[in-house]
Amino acid sequence: MTAPDFESRAADALAVEERVEGFRLLPPAEAEHVFLGLGSREQADLVLGLPAAERQLWMRQLAPDDAADVIQEAPEPERAPLLALIDPDTRREVTALLAYAEDDAGGLMSPRYARLRADMTVDEAISYLRRQARERLETIYYIYVLDPEQRLIGVVSFRELFAATPEKTVRDVMRTQVVTVPDDMDQEAVSNVIAQHDLMAVPVCDAEGRIKGIVTVDDIVDVVREEATEDIQKIGGSEALDLPYWQTAFRTLVRKRAGWLTILFLGEMLTATAMSRFQDEISKAVVLALFLPLIISSGGNSGSQASTLIVRAMALGEVRLRDVLRVMQREIASGLVLGTILAAIGVVRISAWEKIFPGIYGEFPRKIALTVGLSLIGVVAWGTLAGAMLPFFLRRLGFDPASASAPFVATLVDVSGLIIYFSVAQVVLQGTLL
Amino acid sequence: MTAPDFESRAADALAVEERVEGFRLLPPAEAEHVFLGLGSREQADLVLGLPAAERQLWMRQLAPDDAADVIQEAPEPERAPLLALIDPDTRREVTALLAYAEDDAGGLMSPRYARLRADMTVDEAISYLRRQARERLETIYYIYVLDPEQRLIGVVSFRELFAATPEKTVRDVMRTQVVTVPDDMDQEAVSNVIAQHDLMAVPVCDAEGRIKGIVTVDDIVDVVREEATEDIQKIGGSEALDLPYWQTAFRTLVRKRAGWLTILFLGEMLTATAMSRFQDEISKAVVLALFLPLIISSGGNSGSQASTLIVRAMALGEVRLRDVLRVMQREIASGLVLGTILAAIGVVRISAWEKIFPGIYGEFPRKIALTVGLSLIGVVAWGTLAGAMLPFFLRRLGFDPASASAPFVATLVDVSGLIIYFSVAQVVLQGTLL
Repeated sequence: MTAPDFESRAADALAVEERVEGFRLLPPAEAEHVFLGLGSREQADLVLGLPAAERQLWMRQLAPDDAADVIQEAPEPERAPLLALIDPDTRREVTALLAYAEDDAGGLMSPRYARLRADMTVDEAISYLRRQARERLETIYYIYVLDPEQRLIGVVSFRELFAATPEKTVRDVMRTQVVTVPDDMDQEAVSNVIAQHDLMAVPVCDAEGRIKGIVTVDDIVDVVREEATEDIQKIGGSEALDLPYWQTAFRTLVRKRAGWLTILFLGEMLTATAMSRFQDEISKAVVLALFLPLIISSGGNSGSQASTLIVRAMALGEVRLRDVLRVMQREIASGLVLGTILAAIGVVRISAWEKIFPGIYGEFPRKIALTVGLSLIGVVAWGTLAGAMLPFFLRRLGFDPASASAPFVATLVDVSGLIIYFSVAQVVLQGTLL
Repeated sequence: MTAPDFESRAADALAVEERVEGFRLLPPAEAEHVFLGLGSREQADLVLGLPAAERQLWMRQLAPDDAADVIQEAPEPERAPLLALIDPDTRREVTALLAYAEDDAGGLMSPRYARLRADMTVDEAISYLRRQARERLETIYYIYVLDPEQRLIGVVSFRELFAATPEKTVRDVMRTQVVTVPDDMDQEAVSNVIAQHDLMAVPVCDAEGRIKGIVTVDDIVDVVREEATEDIQKIGGSEALDLPYWQTAFRTLVRKRAGWLTILFLGEMLTATAMSRFQDEISKAVVLALFLPLIISSGGNSGSQASTLIVRAMALGEVRLRDVLRVMQREIASGLVLGTILAAIGVVRISAWEKIFPGIYGEFPRKIALTVGLSLIGVVAWGTLAGAMLPFFLRRLGFDPASASAPFVATLVDVSGLIIYFSVAQVVLQGTLL
């Protein structure tokens, strides 16, 4: 455990050092391009890897929202010194942004949006914007029209303003139906709003309707990718890594995977407990053990399938908590159909093998086939239902429905699957094998 | 099967009809807003739901790339009539776009980008752009500088142009290092390029460096969401649904799930075949059957975990085919550590139960614990390795690595897991139980 861990940490440190060296050799224009193209994490590593005298130059290249992200990525003791490097005006903006949670609309937004008053003419507006553009606006795709209390009263796209006849006023060309988001909205919900309305940017407003900043679609691309990665890793049964695969140290990689594997292992131990109650049945009819992995894995597969579909539909806002009954109906029906399909295949398989190798399944092959078939219908229907309901249950309790839903369902269904199987066997084989 | 299927298809048809009715009641400005906010699929349903006389108005609202998407979503016999509704200039652009695969850069791009010549002054450029803006440009965030052969020689952001002093020429302010993508690049790769460089748009060029169109970041948000949904659904062990959960007809939902479940079920039947070779061992030592689900599911869980991590890292471009040996080394080490952790827990659990319920695991509890512990190390290490390697294997063969990797690995590992378990048992229990 120590050897690869040490190696990978050493490799990580080496990689940062090398990157900093390489970076310092670049011509200034290219260095700027490279720097601004990095993620916040790499920007923080790079700035902290530079001699103190060179840090200010780079911190001042950053827009306030990016500077806030870099500071949040830096270790606690480095944060105040980094903030102090920024010029006082920007520092005020950055400090305001640092008050928001990183994953909220407030933590994503930039305070540098283009703004106008409603009574300006189009020509006045364009030359006023031209002055604003010199100070590094985040985007001029949309321009926000504010009243004297900073309340948002309209929006005009730059293209519309630009194409309008010069004597019109901003009020004539602005739209007053503006999609906004509250500053404490979760970033996944913000990305759903932007995607649904096909926006290039969305304004963030406080409870009084005053605009605090804007979230632009290029930041949302990163959010959507990160959130999908987190969900995928959780569905795969590990904690979210939060860093790219190669940048995750070996120790962290193992720790984040071992946690869930251990929980699932502890849950799966219940199968041993459940099995020990059926030891008699197994010793009387060893043939039952043959189909055990087949039956419980079918339940597990159908359960993962259902939970994954529902988890994703929830993340995209397609399925809500109040849809629980409709989903239940639909998934019970799906589960019964899927179970019947697998049962039919299973019965055909057992009958065919019995024809080819007579006696392979003992004296009562038809009863074995019946046991397997009925169990499959029960296990698959139950797995599908449990898989579809678990995400609702997790969300209702305030957890992330993606958290290991699929493997958790598989474990739950393994235990209940073998109970279903042996119970069916007890009824069907009563008086013959058992 | 027929009842819910019929119901859901009827409900779908009803939903479209109701939506069309509701849509026709909206005031024109709001109807336009609603229409432009819909996905291509819904736009196609809506347009085809309208009387023929009203269709032209709506088809003409669409930018050429969106019109091409709507036409591609319509059933084959409706495509030519829809295309005919568009005005001749746009129709030429739409026809050109229809030649590209929907999932390629060419299928995503818009031909309506802002363009300039290098020798214009900034002031000339701005008034030239103002004329272009009247004709609904896709974006004026970036303006592309072309030579007389339509080859891309530079790019200038509108903000930079707008903030530059009026006497400078476009050549003075443009950047000549432009990130471009080829027209046949897959959309997932395009989204990686845009995310890596934090772009608002990327130009699509042919082999001669001539610009064909641009892909904007708002289209990429949809791509990233769709691709993540597809990958998540495949990881969960079903085919990608391609439509939101509620819009997928019951029949389609079951069909897309039944396909993979059946394949996995057929694979899992190998466990019954493998088990039948160990029937003797089970009847001699029924206690072995108790731990069977625990051991094979641990292999399955660690395998899904590893394959999911690698599949996602591949989709994000973090892990490439040539990294196969580095990944193998890292995952063998991870698998051994994870296996040892689970083995330790398993051995402690068996020893503890033996203390509390003496005799529960028969005459040789220590040997049973040793069998379970060694098997866990073997099964988890093998599951992790197989899970990490399968995505490389699938990609090497030209398949999508996400295609059911996780459940496929679980099935593979179930079969090999029980072989490992019984083989370890044969060695450890030789001369005692077996």
